[in-house]
Amino acid sequence: MIYLDNAATTYPKPESVLIGAVNAQNKCGGNPGRSSHSLSVAASEVIYNLRCSLCDFFSLENTENAVLTFNATYAINIAINALWQGGHILLSNLEHNSTVRPVAQRTKNYSFFNALSDNVIEDIEQKRQRNTRMLICTHKSNSIGHILPVEEISLYCKMHGIRMIIDASQSAGIDKIGFDRTVADAICIPSHKGLYGLQGMGAVLFNEKYDGNSLLHPLVSGGSGAMSRSRTMPRFLPERLEAGTLSVPIAAAWNEGIRFVKQIGIDKIASNEGKLSKRSIDYLNKINKITVYNQPKDYSSGIVLFSVSDYDSDAFAKELDKRGICVRSGLHCSPVSLDTVAAPQSGAVRASFGIFNTEKEVNIFLNAIEDILKI
Amino acid sequence: MIYLDNAATTYPKPESVLIGAVNAQNKCGGNPGRSSHSLSVAASEVIYNLRCSLCDFFSLENTENAVLTFNATYAINIAINALWQGGHILLSNLEHNSTVRPVAQRTKNYSFFNALSDNVIEDIEQKRQRNTRMLICTHKSNSIGHILPVEEISLYCKMHGIRMIIDASQSAGIDKIGFDRTVADAICIPSHKGLYGLQGMGAVLFNEKYDGNSLLHPLVSGGSGAMSRSRTMPRFLPERLEAGTLSVPIAAAWNEGIRFVKQIGIDKIASNEGKLSKRSIDYLNKINKITVYNQPKDYSSGIVLFSVSDYDSDAFAKELDKRGICVRSGLHCSPVSLDTVAAPQSGAVRASFGIFNTEKEVNIFLNAIEDILKI
Repeated sequence: MIYLDNAATTYPKPESVLIGAVNAQNKCGGNPGRSSHSLSVAASEVIYNLRCSLCDFFSLENTENAVLTFNATYAINIAINALWQGGHILLSNLEHNSTVRPVAQRTKNYSFFNALSDNVIEDIEQKRQRNTRMLICTHKSNSIGHILPVEEISLYCKMHGIRMIIDASQSAGIDKIGFDRTVADAICIPSHKGLYGLQGMGAVLFNEKYDGNSLLHPLVSGGSGAMSRSRTMPRFLPERLEAGTLSVPIAAAWNEGIRFVKQIGIDKIASNEGKLSKRSIDYLNKINKITVYNQPKDYSSGIVLFSVSDYDSDAFAKELDKRGICVRSGLHCSPVSLDTVAAPQSGAVRASFGIFNTEKEVNIFLNAIEDILKI
Repeated sequence: MIYLDNAATTYPKPESVLIGAVNAQNKCGGNPGRSSHSLSVAASEVIYNLRCSLCDFFSLENTENAVLTFNATYAINIAINALWQGGHILLSNLEHNSTVRPVAQRTKNYSFFNALSDNVIEDIEQKRQRNTRMLICTHKSNSIGHILPVEEISLYCKMHGIRMIIDASQSAGIDKIGFDRTVADAICIPSHKGLYGLQGMGAVLFNEKYDGNSLLHPLVSGGSGAMSRSRTMPRFLPERLEAGTLSVPIAAAWNEGIRFVKQIGIDKIASNEGKLSKRSIDYLNKINKITVYNQPKDYSSGIVLFSVSDYDSDAFAKELDKRGICVRSGLHCSPVSLDTVAAPQSGAVRASFGIFNTEKEVNIFLNAIEDILKI
């Protein structure tokens, strides 16, 4: 089996990630932040260590500002709910439903800027309305691998009093992103993609200190292990936005995933993925029946989106699966981005690479395409 | 180390639970419900198998009605958000902050009925207001182990058009609860307590079929792997209330936990825990300095709540921890229930038992108390 669906979830995981989960469960299996006995304190330490790793990796100053969630989608929902105080919202036209839908759930007052414009800031300036108060954008498109200039966008937002949330689901662990490079208000990330943790956790990383700030609206309320007599969530982070029990084994696994990424280095990871996507696209571009939707400057993004004439994307993915190759088809939960690049209404095929993929695997993948198309 | 904090999280877990998580990650590590390749289909099967187990265990007819969440607190928040359509809310006076706080977040229009009344239904009838539209109660108190008559309460609610949500966080896997015994609208449960899964998942089990019902308000929106072109969440369960990637290893672990509980049988589990709590309380009741807060009929609940004169609960728990015994102190995220039984303002000590605890461990626990009190 050749796994080319790393943008959905990376597979396989480093062995240390699973060992980390099992060890943490066995040695630190208490309830974190709830009791004061040794096993609960050990559990709290696992959670704290994860917050420290996230701070280190994303240049975040305060561990309190790393709010742990179920996944990146929950992180984005929690961030929007915490930071949005009304007004118009700007989104990029490469967004995933994980940003579009929580916005649409709250307001009809949103519109899209063109992330593929030659001058994105100019486009944002044109699309900005008098009451634009929030901008949400992906750092890296999950469908076409396009990277948005989040550093410049965040400076623009800061200048105009617009709160900015970055969805770094596809870039975290692969492309440079952190508060050393952006003045955005929040970065949202998942555990199980480029950071090689297990599925089951995400985080909102808040840029500013919000201690005692009751204006960060919690989406979920419940036991917080602190200030229990209050009928509202504590005013301080992370407790204000974290409710109920956090998962010690998943936190430990994520910590090991981050350690793994740091050991290899994101430059090396990006270079491996980029080499494989570039090689694939260069090849696919030569086949008449195939249309590639990536922008030329994104050929080395690690993500390849294409369609095959006479084939529905699902049917083509199924043909690849028969040959032992796992790719994703359809809309990739991002109909907005597929429309932006004029992909077929029913979707396109995506191959996405990870650190464990090799050139040999890419050759087999490309040979399988030849085989299906009888070239 | 003797672990007596099983009401916070059970420890240790059966070996099969960890093995299940690791195997699922290795063999089914795709993204569930997102792609159609073999590894993603295998991942979806893990999730589906968990839904089937939950249906079987809680006498739920449709797998679609088992909505998976981050933990029981999220389950309760999601259930309230989905089912509450305004009006007064009734809560029991034994609630955990996981129900009180999400209610208080939404409305000031709530009040408490007395779960310790000789006739709970009569008390609810007295406390019911003309516009009471929802009742939320724990099945089993996390602080004093008291079981509420949720079967009768649910029949009363049904008769009066009141939607009912049961928090079965403390009872699931130990005490009988399911839709064969209640006509409540939803039961909320965690993975990591009496069902012996790992931390990191919970579920709302909805009683009725809500297919196509847009009145179930989603709390969180995002990618659903279906109906992606819609700007709102799909109208059908479970997709309507599940957003983003679910955790395959945690789902597999939970499934193994449920299998473990079924193999032993909840009667045997309840009997073991009950024997140990009864023995502890009978002993503690003989010590002058100690006040036990459990009701006499709850002595066999598996949970013991007590305070020691001249000791803050944290200080006493710390003394026990020094002797290798893990118990919880403080308010147990349930100040309402501690006030109901007139426990000290700063809280009380809780010992809670699991299937792996033994009489020998209880003897050591009770001897440690003697040692601290120099009896």
